[in-house]
Amino acid sequence: MQNFEKFLQDNLPVSKSIHPTYEKALHEMLKAGGKRFRPALLLGVVGAYNNLLIDGARHAAYAIELLHTYSLIHDDLPAMDDSPLRRGKPTLHVVYDEVTAILVGDALNTYSFEVLADAPFSDAIRVKLIRELAYNGGLNGMVLGQAIDCYFENQPLSIDDVKILHTNKTAKLIAASLKMGAIIVGEEELGEKLYDFGIKLGVLFQIQDDILDVTQTSEEAGKLTNNDEDKNSFVTLIGLENSMKEANILADELTMELNNFDENLKESLSSLLTKYINRHR
Amino acid sequence: MQNFEKFLQDNLPVSKSIHPTYEKALHEMLKAGGKRFRPALLLGVVGAYNNLLIDGARHAAYAIELLHTYSLIHDDLPAMDDSPLRRGKPTLHVVYDEVTAILVGDALNTYSFEVLADAPFSDAIRVKLIRELAYNGGLNGMVLGQAIDCYFENQPLSIDDVKILHTNKTAKLIAASLKMGAIIVGEEELGEKLYDFGIKLGVLFQIQDDILDVTQTSEEAGKLTNNDEDKNSFVTLIGLENSMKEANILADELTMELNNFDENLKESLSSLLTKYINRHR
Repeated sequence: MQNFEKFLQDNLPVSKSIHPTYEKALHEMLKAGGKRFRPALLLGVVGAYNNLLIDGARHAAYAIELLHTYSLIHDDLPAMDDSPLRRGKPTLHVVYDEVTAILVGDALNTYSFEVLADAPFSDAIRVKLIRELAYNGGLNGMVLGQAIDCYFENQPLSIDDVKILHTNKTAKLIAASLKMGAIIVGEEELGEKLYDFGIKLGVLFQIQDDILDVTQTSEEAGKLTNNDEDKNSFVTLIGLENSMKEANILADELTMELNNFDENLKESLSSLLTKYINRHR
Repeated sequence: MQNFEKFLQDNLPVSKSIHPTYEKALHEMLKAGGKRFRPALLLGVVGAYNNLLIDGARHAAYAIELLHTYSLIHDDLPAMDDSPLRRGKPTLHVVYDEVTAILVGDALNTYSFEVLADAPFSDAIRVKLIRELAYNGGLNGMVLGQAIDCYFENQPLSIDDVKILHTNKTAKLIAASLKMGAIIVGEEELGEKLYDFGIKLGVLFQIQDDILDVTQTSEEAGKLTNNDEDKNSFVTLIGLENSMKEANILADELTMELNNFDENLKESLSSLLTKYINRHR
């Protein structure tokens, strides 16, 4: 992942114009780091099947990180979560203003598709990757999840509906990251299996986030924690202890399912996944 | 264009979920009408060269209209132009709230690329269309233009810089609409010429908008007019009379240039363009 970090820093969006701060604002949250979890998933799948494709795959991993970063910037806006802190830094609307945060988000959203359209793959692969990212990061994926999250603030949902929320808001993009790796190496059947695995992983990821939100300080998390009382989180709905139980069940299932994948894939993903699958325990 | 309107109404984004108003909000501004100028440009080019491709081309025209509509929704947000009215209707953040307006805009932005990825063309054409839309509607196109517009509010720009502003904010997407038509019919050299023509047309379009902003009522325009005093518009910088002169010069140039295109293209575009080129006179 060091190579990915270098790739990202070397390929930050370029925009020279009369606007004195626009390019810097575009870079701010991208450079701030983050776990790069979604890129690592995609690159883990590609590395398992064809290491020669890793250089090209970084473009696709970058596109996912661009889309993910835009979503964080918009989620943090005053009209939504109104968060002062992200990735350990002040959020864009705090450093600049709301206009900048909205427009930088818009630009990174569109740019993710530009990056995929220019990525070093055949046109057939490019189109498949674009479709996957748009489906899962768009109106029936991540954006829908955020819309549900905001709409039902202060209105408790059932656990099933919270799973719908998190499947859309978090899990679909995580699942797409795995599947896009499979698309790049031409393993489409595996892609479907990885997608289902990724949905479950994404829900676990969100339960863990909910747990960490109440057990970590803002400094530890690099973002404002203990800020979800009005949100539909697992912890607010079923309590910390039951959320831990739910997370353990999912973590055990995922550990089992991981064993069903090819040896090379297991090897490539297991240290990453074991770390994440168990980060709440 | 009646057929395009029907296509759009038949292909509105579908999103069934537990969110009670999200799908309706996605449709609101799309259904509200507007001039459909960009779709008409694309379809005019395609119709001139290969009428058999018109059905497919509507998908691409729709994608442009989706991207354009998202940009209007975000431009109207309280943090930006704070407009109460658009396409003769209350804006989304007025009917619903800011969260809805931000997220619907995000969803339509992403959806425009989903529509292109699924459009009935070869993968090679799809990728070219996606690249064109992303380049011109993104971080070095429309979004940059809006960023410049907002940043320099209350700070007068030079006329050259205002042209940079409007080239990005308005002209690039208009130019891309013409070029995307040329891409669909496989006339790439023509596409480059049409792009240059479209940039000039887009700048004229914006000067006319600036003129109409001070000469039309809000009812006539379907949006709030006389609202640009703090903005860098041609009228605020060089006055109404000089703006009319500038518009006349550009309109004459464009009328001449239109004559250099193939007879079929001239015929296909001339009634549309003559109407727009002369709408300020």
